[in-house]
Amino acid sequence: MNFEVEVRIELKPGVIDAEGETIRKSLKLLGYPVNDVKSLKVYVIGVNADSKKDAEEKIADACRRLLANPVIQNYSVKVKNARIIPENSRKRL
Amino acid sequence: MNFEVEVRIELKPGVIDAEGETIRKSLKLLGYPVNDVKSLKVYVIGVNADSKKDAEEKIADACRRLLANPVIQNYSVKVKNARIIPENSRKRL
Repeated sequence: MNFEVEVRIELKPGVIDAEGETIRKSLKLLGYPVNDVKSLKVYVIGVNADSKKDAEEKIADACRRLLANPVIQNYSVKVKNARIIPENSRKRL
Repeated sequence: MNFEVEVRIELKPGVIDAEGETIRKSLKLLGYPVNDVKSLKVYVIGVNADSKKDAEEKIADACRRLLANPVIQNYSVKVKNARIIPENSRKRL
């Protein structure tokens, strides 16, 4: 089964978020009443797995090995519902 | 009132997602049964506004003016609940 999994990667508390801070300053300069901006990276991944739990474990493992930097980033994995993709319409790049 | 607003910025359909594609290939090489990877940018913004609707309008306007590139990106704005922040604990960088 194909599951859609959303991975959210954010900086750990205490790590300076330069991108968020730059955006906060820019929005302030443009006159928006913004207090703080946090930037996150999100990946929506389609993964083949036997169950929701299996999909979650596979992607959490991928986060540890590849997607997140454990020194400065936290990650969270959320499995959405299974989706049906006809074999011939799958993206093969 | 201070509202927490989440902005999701993603590439329009048809625009090549180089980051997502690179991650898909890397995960495949590591043995993960991944079909497709989409990369998104998310900003969590704290904004002062009179109401939920006001907060949404302010940030949607900011997206049009600064955060999203309308040629290649779509954005969505979601207002979460109001949050109470004591004046003296606000981040002032």
